[in-house]
Amino acid sequence: MTTIRVALLRGDELQTGDESLIDAWSADSDAKLWVDIQNPAHEIIEPLLEQRFGFHELAAEDSLSGTSLPKYDPFPTHDFFIFRAVDVNVTEHRSETYKLATFLGRNFLFTIHVDPLAAIEDVWSRLPADRRLLRNGPDFALYAVVDQIVDAHFPLLEQIEECVDDLQDRIFDSADSAHLDELLHLKRDVNVLRRHSLPQRELLNQISRGDAKFIQPQHLIYFRDIYDHMFRISETIDVDRDQMSGTMEAYLSVVANRTNEIMKVLTIFSAIMLPLTLIAGVYGMNFKQMPELFWPLGYLYAIGLMIGVAIVMILWFWQKGWITRSEKRRKRKE
Amino acid sequence: MTTIRVALLRGDELQTGDESLIDAWSADSDAKLWVDIQNPAHEIIEPLLEQRFGFHELAAEDSLSGTSLPKYDPFPTHDFFIFRAVDVNVTEHRSETYKLATFLGRNFLFTIHVDPLAAIEDVWSRLPADRRLLRNGPDFALYAVVDQIVDAHFPLLEQIEECVDDLQDRIFDSADSAHLDELLHLKRDVNVLRRHSLPQRELLNQISRGDAKFIQPQHLIYFRDIYDHMFRISETIDVDRDQMSGTMEAYLSVVANRTNEIMKVLTIFSAIMLPLTLIAGVYGMNFKQMPELFWPLGYLYAIGLMIGVAIVMILWFWQKGWITRSEKRRKRKE
Amino acid sequence: MTTIRVALLRGDELQTGDESLIDAWSADSDAKLWVDIQNPAHEIIEPLLEQRFGFHELAAEDSLSGTSLPKYDPFPTHDFFIFRAVDVNVTEHRSETYKLATFLGRNFLFTIHVDPLAAIEDVWSRLPADRRLLRNGPDFALYAVVDQIVDAHFPLLEQIEECVDDLQDRIFDSADSAHLDELLHLKRDVNVLRRHSLPQRELLNQISRGDAKFIQPQHLIYFRDIYDHMFRISETIDVDRDQMSGTMEAYLSVVANRTNEIMKVLTIFSAIMLPLTLIAGVYGMNFKQMPELFWPLGYLYAIGLMIGVAIVMILWFWQKGWITRSEKRRKRKE
Amino acid sequence: MTTIRVALLRGDELQTGDESLIDAWSADSDAKLWVDIQNPAHEIIEPLLEQRFGFHELAAEDSLSGTSLPKYDPFPTHDFFIFRAVDVNVTEHRSETYKLATFLGRNFLFTIHVDPLAAIEDVWSRLPADRRLLRNGPDFALYAVVDQIVDAHFPLLEQIEECVDDLQDRIFDSADSAHLDELLHLKRDVNVLRRHSLPQRELLNQISRGDAKFIQPQHLIYFRDIYDHMFRISETIDVDRDQMSGTMEAYLSVVANRTNEIMKVLTIFSAIMLPLTLIAGVYGMNFKQMPELFWPLGYLYAIGLMIGVAIVMILWFWQKGWITRSEKRRKRKE
Amino acid sequence: MTTIRVALLRGDELQTGDESLIDAWSADSDAKLWVDIQNPAHEIIEPLLEQRFGFHELAAEDSLSGTSLPKYDPFPTHDFFIFRAVDVNVTEHRSETYKLATFLGRNFLFTIHVDPLAAIEDVWSRLPADRRLLRNGPDFALYAVVDQIVDAHFPLLEQIEECVDDLQDRIFDSADSAHLDELLHLKRDVNVLRRHSLPQRELLNQISRGDAKFIQPQHLIYFRDIYDHMFRISETIDVDRDQMSGTMEAYLSVVANRTNEIMKVLTIFSAIMLPLTLIAGVYGMNFKQMPELFWPLGYLYAIGLMIGVAIVMILWFWQKGWITRSEKRRKRKE
Repeated sequence: MTTIRVALLRGDELQTGDESLIDAWSADSDAKLWVDIQNPAHEIIEPLLEQRFGFHELAAEDSLSGTSLPKYDPFPTHDFFIFRAVDVNVTEHRSETYKLATFLGRNFLFTIHVDPLAAIEDVWSRLPADRRLLRNGPDFALYAVVDQIVDAHFPLLEQIEECVDDLQDRIFDSADSAHLDELLHLKRDVNVLRRHSLPQRELLNQISRGDAKFIQPQHLIYFRDIYDHMFRISETIDVDRDQMSGTMEAYLSVVANRTNEIMKVLTIFSAIMLPLTLIAGVYGMNFKQMPELFWPLGYLYAIGLMIGVAIVMILWFWQKGWITRSEKRRKRKE
Repeated sequence: MTTIRVALLRGDELQTGDESLIDAWSADSDAKLWVDIQNPAHEIIEPLLEQRFGFHELAAEDSLSGTSLPKYDPFPTHDFFIFRAVDVNVTEHRSETYKLATFLGRNFLFTIHVDPLAAIEDVWSRLPADRRLLRNGPDFALYAVVDQIVDAHFPLLEQIEECVDDLQDRIFDSADSAHLDELLHLKRDVNVLRRHSLPQRELLNQISRGDAKFIQPQHLIYFRDIYDHMFRISETIDVDRDQMSGTMEAYLSVVANRTNEIMKVLTIFSAIMLPLTLIAGVYGMNFKQMPELFWPLGYLYAIGLMIGVAIVMILWFWQKGWITRSEKRRKRKE
Repeated sequence: MTTIRVALLRGDELQTGDESLIDAWSADSDAKLWVDIQNPAHEIIEPLLEQRFGFHELAAEDSLSGTSLPKYDPFPTHDFFIFRAVDVNVTEHRSETYKLATFLGRNFLFTIHVDPLAAIEDVWSRLPADRRLLRNGPDFALYAVVDQIVDAHFPLLEQIEECVDDLQDRIFDSADSAHLDELLHLKRDVNVLRRHSLPQRELLNQISRGDAKFIQPQHLIYFRDIYDHMFRISETIDVDRDQMSGTMEAYLSVVANRTNEIMKVLTIFSAIMLPLTLIAGVYGMNFKQMPELFWPLGYLYAIGLMIGVAIVMILWFWQKGWITRSEKRRKRKE
Repeated sequence: MTTIRVALLRGDELQTGDESLIDAWSADSDAKLWVDIQNPAHEIIEPLLEQRFGFHELAAEDSLSGTSLPKYDPFPTHDFFIFRAVDVNVTEHRSETYKLATFLGRNFLFTIHVDPLAAIEDVWSRLPADRRLLRNGPDFALYAVVDQIVDAHFPLLEQIEECVDDLQDRIFDSADSAHLDELLHLKRDVNVLRRHSLPQRELLNQISRGDAKFIQPQHLIYFRDIYDHMFRISETIDVDRDQMSGTMEAYLSVVANRTNEIMKVLTIFSAIMLPLTLIAGVYGMNFKQMPELFWPLGYLYAIGLMIGVAIVMILWFWQKGWITRSEKRRKRKE
Repeated sequence: MTTIRVALLRGDELQTGDESLIDAWSADSDAKLWVDIQNPAHEIIEPLLEQRFGFHELAAEDSLSGTSLPKYDPFPTHDFFIFRAVDVNVTEHRSETYKLATFLGRNFLFTIHVDPLAAIEDVWSRLPADRRLLRNGPDFALYAVVDQIVDAHFPLLEQIEECVDDLQDRIFDSADSAHLDELLHLKRDVNVLRRHSLPQRELLNQISRGDAKFIQPQHLIYFRDIYDHMFRISETIDVDRDQMSGTMEAYLSVVANRTNEIMKVLTIFSAIMLPLTLIAGVYGMNFKQMPELFWPLGYLYAIGLMIGVAIVMILWFWQKGWITRSEKRRKRKE
């Protein structure tokens, strides 16, 4: 169900309410208006946005439907922005991005979104206490919202970084294909994040250069500040991607190393056991004429021969470096 | 066989018919004309395009022959565009792209294509109902067509994404070289898609910047909207490519992991069986003097020795972590 | 041996001959001249190019020696271009590129090359029939030559694409190191092609933007057309490179998969045979007291035990999915 | 605890002390001031920076909090820079970067940092001896500080290069998964370094182009010199990254090679031992009628047969190139 | 020890000598001066460069110390360039780059370098014979020097290409970890080369665009020619890098292929020998009641059974394609 709420600042008096406040705003050209619309329905919104405020049909549509990327469209009487609040749930491997469409005019701000947004809620609730938010102009309120949207990336990135580190450690412990699956999912989450953050960074760059007509010049530095944060975010994402690629490559090496170790064990076993079995086989032959069989110490001699061969083999592998103390120690750690 | 159909809007009256309508258009400088030519043959088209309308020979040729990429050529009396409708059949691994050549003048639009195009059919059929399409000028009709061409990418991309996800799941289930083959084919399909979508995106960027003379300024925002969609499409393609690269790498790791598991089974088997076989071999030797053979419980002692060695080996592998409960559970899932 | 041939168009009269025609051209400022020089020798060319026509010593040198990349140098009285006709013999893995140096003035064109070029031969032979080639100015003749040089890439690219596809199929059939060798050679061929096509594309872009003074404005669209072809060529080369990288990665996976299959066979064999051999070994022991040996059906019992163990092992591998019908079927295909 | 120290140059007289010197500076418009603040606390700094000097609240905040990247913000009365002194401890795999926020005016310089910085200490201590530092203007003092910050990268890069070389050598000696872990950590350190050095290089480029209003033109060449150093640093970082990628790939190959060697040993052993064991097995069969068993030299014949088979197998492997002298020699080196 | 030599051209008279000639040059504003300084010491150079000629202290320093990259700094009375002569000794895996610092004024040229440079020696020695070098202005002499420096890359690149080709061949022969080591070293050499050649190319681009004030316009084309060479050089370096990456990947595949072959041999051996050994084991059992043992042809029957099983196994592997004639042939080639 569509929810519309309106905040109106006249002089220093702040009123919040529903659509009806818009009329009061129309009457006073110095009044500042913020209209927040949640879960917009076409039949309710269209008369308000297109007919009453004269927003362009394409922009109005964009504020309704789902998946557009961050962008900026200038219009004669207002600026139209789409921002994206990104939320990647790394533990459950689901990523959600929430669209925020905004129309910014000289003395009004529309924020339109489907789901409730923490950033909107927070700034809205600060309105009564912090008059500056609307008094400085609706673009300052927009700044406050976008600032929160962007800064919400940081805890997320930290979470991802921890995830990658943890995965890396676990892979060195035991290279399991479940880890691989996790890594691929994490990679996709980060790719989704990146796909949205690059246009958002570009959008903020545009704004902070002063391209948007209804952002007042003295507020550009605030958007420049957000841009710097967004820049850092996308840099961090790239470092994470790089780290994940390295982890992927490392995974293969860890598995190969393990195969190597397994092969060594097999080879050492076979190389020791096969000759001994041969010796036993030889003295199990049924030839009538086999002098050793009749030696009184023949049995001891055979056992001794086996032990001798085993020792030679072990020494050989020792000298090849396949059996080492350090290897044993490492094994113990695993 | 070449099919030519013509739509003519005079005042508010829409007529559709064949080539003969063009004369009516020539007589009325306010009339709007749309000529749609399917499966063009050189000998029919050349007199119409080059001689009657004075289109440049190179552009006329481009509208006939097969494989050019999206582009824009300005001429004094008209703009010439090539668009590409892409259709990749992911299940059968065949990719088709259909060329759409268009000449756009102040009051005329030519759309020329070999195969029937869904986008053309749809817009053409909406002409009688939606007068806006021609009344706003032929560039608005062109917008309607290109909009559909671009939006047709989205279901395709979803299909590809599902394909990649599905492939990834199947690879984790059983890394089969048939999957690899499928992955390589899918990669090529996406590369073909990318190769056409990048110049198309660039073309739409050019148009939405206002480079094309015969697109009216008030319609630029519509093309800008298409450009945004195209941008999203090419971003999605890049994410897909990245995901496929990851899958390729993962494939190798999954196979390596499996080899690892197989080697473990072999090594455990050999390491347990070889010593037991040796013991059996030793007591199969024919030495006259082998005290154990004459022990009343010799046989039991030998069997006991074997069981003891087997238990030691199993414990050793257990302690090395090669035999674990979790491994058994995982195996069961597979 | 240096071969010089000259084509001269005066009014509508075309003359072809040797150097002596140049004097006739000097006398008539409207005459158009095309001088084609094959296998140029320094001592013959230098007086002609540097002294008579006043071409710069560096440009004259460039038209002689071997390996420069496509480029454009403007001079007050003429433009100097180097083009490259590329010929990669994919079946024998040899790549050849042929340099074409051209001096283009208001009413003259010099084409200088070491080896005979198909494009030159073809256009030269069309001169008598198609007067347009020189009448439109020497830049139009140049267009005709370059057009052919560029279009000669297409069959080559198709050949390469087929080669890659074929290689890919063969690798999936049997991953042989000969295929790898072939792939590396093919990669180098494509790299050579790419190295020449990128500067050539840039050169054609420059020309079609109108940078070259002696290309007449009305002919720019022709060069723009060539540029579009060259653009498509370099796009195709990139797709091919990508496909080859994918093939390289796939190769490794195919080999790994095969190793995997081999290991499975070995492990299954060992895991079945080793326990049976142990059973046989046990009943081959020479203990005096082994009750089974005296059972009337002892032999049958031992054989039965072996068959039982074998069945258990086979069932175990079956349940692990190592022995499946589908695998057998796949094997049959191989 | 916040530490504030102030250096004041009036005429040729240098005074150092605490905040109180600022009043003296205010009185003399030719005096040069350098205020260095370490470990800034909000409640102490805010009145000084925002209220007394009128620095923008966002810039003042940036000089307090932690992690921003290098950047430049112009203000009417001063320039605001953030630099980063990077310190990566390669042996312990920890990387630290220290922020240095600076406000530069016509005749004042603020340097604000949390931890003590070697570059600041050094330049501060040279103030009494080298009057040029402040006399040339506060931007020259800033140059001296930044020069040291940048040059501190060089020993670090050398350390990293040595680390990579050393790791590479050790991997060729014995490809251990501990090396892999080290490599991944080193890679992350270098990535952190790169992430900070690229914006810093861009910042220095901006400065040396003359974008910063309060850097005097005759000092641009000094910043250009720092930029050149920073350029070299980021180039070196890229070479290092490339080298590390190569090492990662090499690691896998080294492990694969080793597996190969192990497999050869196993195969040679099995291929020699298994036939001999079979021969022994055959003559251990209990058939009543086995002529060889009754030959007087039967035993010798069997041993001879074994030796013969063993020699044949060894020769076969020799001819296959699996047993070679060179291999033995190489093994000895390992 | 610092060596200073001076060449002075007055009118058409060339004098060479030591520093004292500089005074003669000062007296005649049309005289051209070239000062070549080898192995510069600070205490000798500083008075000459900084005090007498007024070169900037930073530039003077740069001409002394070691490692700066190619660059260009403009000054009012002269241009300052740093070039790099690169020398990579591919056989011994050591790469050296030699810095050449140059100050170029209207009528003077300083070349300063630590080690003797072949390019300087050569041009210097041609001075008496080729008056053009100085008469055209000192920038022409500089051209002659830089031309030689750049062209010295070509034999080097050919050497590297041969090296890569040779390595590739050897890897296909026998994938040895020594090859890998060589490849990594070669890669580093090429990276070093690339790191210097990119800024040098950019520097030459700048010069040939006419950015340097003291290069006369009519000589720009000469520098443009050098730039084209440098461009080709860096393109070749990129192709080489690509080829080396391919070789690295191929290496792994070759090793994997070899492991594959080894596994096949092992598996075939085991799969044939194990069943035979089992048969021998069975008839070596000591059951009292084993009818076969008493058959007159029992022994023959057992041997026959073994041969039969062996043939079945061989046929099975043949049909699987593991034993083929082609394989044998290939093996023979190795």
